[in-house]
Amino acid sequence: MYDCIVIGMGCAGMSAAIYAKEAGLKTLILEESVPGGLLNKIKKVNNYLGFKDINGSDLAFNMFEHVRSLNIEYKITKVLDIKSDGEVKIITTTKGEYKTKGIIVAVGRKPMRSGISNEKDYINKGISYCAVCDGALYKGKDVVVLGSDQTAFDEAVYLSNICNKVYFVSNKEVSFNLDKYSNIELINNIKVKEFLGEDNISGIVLQNDSVINCSGVFIYYGYSSEVAFLNNLGIVNDKGYIEVDDNMKTSKDFVYACGDIIKKELYQVSTAVSEGAIAAVSLNREINVR
Amino acid sequence: MYDCIVIGMGCAGMSAAIYAKEAGLKTLILEESVPGGLLNKIKKVNNYLGFKDINGSDLAFNMFEHVRSLNIEYKITKVLDIKSDGEVKIITTTKGEYKTKGIIVAVGRKPMRSGISNEKDYINKGISYCAVCDGALYKGKDVVVLGSDQTAFDEAVYLSNICNKVYFVSNKEVSFNLDKYSNIELINNIKVKEFLGEDNISGIVLQNDSVINCSGVFIYYGYSSEVAFLNNLGIVNDKGYIEVDDNMKTSKDFVYACGDIIKKELYQVSTAVSEGAIAAVSLNREINVR
Repeated sequence: MYDCIVIGMGCAGMSAAIYAKEAGLKTLILEESVPGGLLNKIKKVNNYLGFKDINGSDLAFNMFEHVRSLNIEYKITKVLDIKSDGEVKIITTTKGEYKTKGIIVAVGRKPMRSGISNEKDYINKGISYCAVCDGALYKGKDVVVLGSDQTAFDEAVYLSNICNKVYFVSNKEVSFNLDKYSNIELINNIKVKEFLGEDNISGIVLQNDSVINCSGVFIYYGYSSEVAFLNNLGIVNDKGYIEVDDNMKTSKDFVYACGDIIKKELYQVSTAVSEGAIAAVSLNREINVR
Repeated sequence: MYDCIVIGMGCAGMSAAIYAKEAGLKTLILEESVPGGLLNKIKKVNNYLGFKDINGSDLAFNMFEHVRSLNIEYKITKVLDIKSDGEVKIITTTKGEYKTKGIIVAVGRKPMRSGISNEKDYINKGISYCAVCDGALYKGKDVVVLGSDQTAFDEAVYLSNICNKVYFVSNKEVSFNLDKYSNIELINNIKVKEFLGEDNISGIVLQNDSVINCSGVFIYYGYSSEVAFLNNLGIVNDKGYIEVDDNMKTSKDFVYACGDIIKKELYQVSTAVSEGAIAAVSLNREINVR
């Protein structure tokens, strides 16, 4: 019987596990694939304080080494289901069942792909899914934002303060007030045919065969998370996120969540790491202070 | 005229400055003494994900190198006063005046000393001011907690799950429910005369000359911050903290706060770094999205 099982070994999950272990909780991490989650897909991280200009997978490696140095138990397995039996939670995985008092869900999320044929070829070569993460790479350059909703537009505004010109390309008819943003151009109701570029991206081709030259493309087509295993707990909202309070507690006792799976304002390495810490300290308090 | 002036160069302030600079804001950091703040006083940090078992001042150095790599402007000077003049904030320092659109306050706090004569000799040699930070160092050992309030008792409870025995020594008459914590012993209404130990702490001497043997002493006599320069802004509450919303915004437009100076649940490197990121991204939004 564990005190704390952390589901997911991205930066939120690893931070949670470190705090849980340090607090004296018997802790296990369950991860489906590799430590570091989305970090492994990021070429350069330059905003997690203390690590300047580091490759995402190198940062993930540092984090995992940190976890290993504390002898925190982990298993590579897929979680299938969670059941509550009184004060015990039973987690069913492809490698068997684990019992625990508390759970910290840190499964993250993935950006939805645009579906444009050659998108894959340009990931980390000009295609990004996060303006706050990668915007500074495009200082003074022209970029394209693909998306239709307010989130996508907010990212375009963020980029407009860094970049020379921001083309906001929507496949629907959308309307935003551009009065304050002279360098954002809204291009409505058109699909993107393909991305251009020898090695790094140099432009996009629209459905009408016109070309927009650019150094970067930011794609905001939403996110997805694999949360079917949480169905029994009923903690995922209709948008696919988990809502938590300031202590990272979900609507269920002894169940916490942190990182990209929670509903919040800023999805960054630093926020995920902090939420992991808060989740573990809060769970420890709930276990030991009742 | 700056877009963003960060006051304080601890981990919260440095993280804020990095995010502000990356967002394209003209950014300046004002620091009174040295980068890293309280980190420089900590012997080992083992819970900021990615840095295993690092000396506090080494971690501070890494963070400062990160700030310098982004060519973020900083000045070593003491802030004396802040005035608002319409949308412009005027910061008066010992080195002159600086004008800015936005301010991020990250001045931190310091633990109050106990006043016990030889306390200074044992800092980082058995005396600590943070159970969540240092508790794991005392696994299976006996420790003393000095304090009287709920915060101090919460820390004793945290330690009770890690340590063999926790002596809670209060200089007042206090009462806590100990039913769940068989290894916490409450010693009321007595002062501590001095700390014992050759190199590291080995015990404390009470006013009645009885000795408690222990490997560590956790002191919770409150905290203090130098916030007189904030008087004109009226953002500091009667406990000496700044209250902020989820975006780290204070009650004043374009004024944000982060790190140990804010009212919150968990005072850690990781939380401070995250709050710095959130403060800067929020300020950037307020400046560019109005």
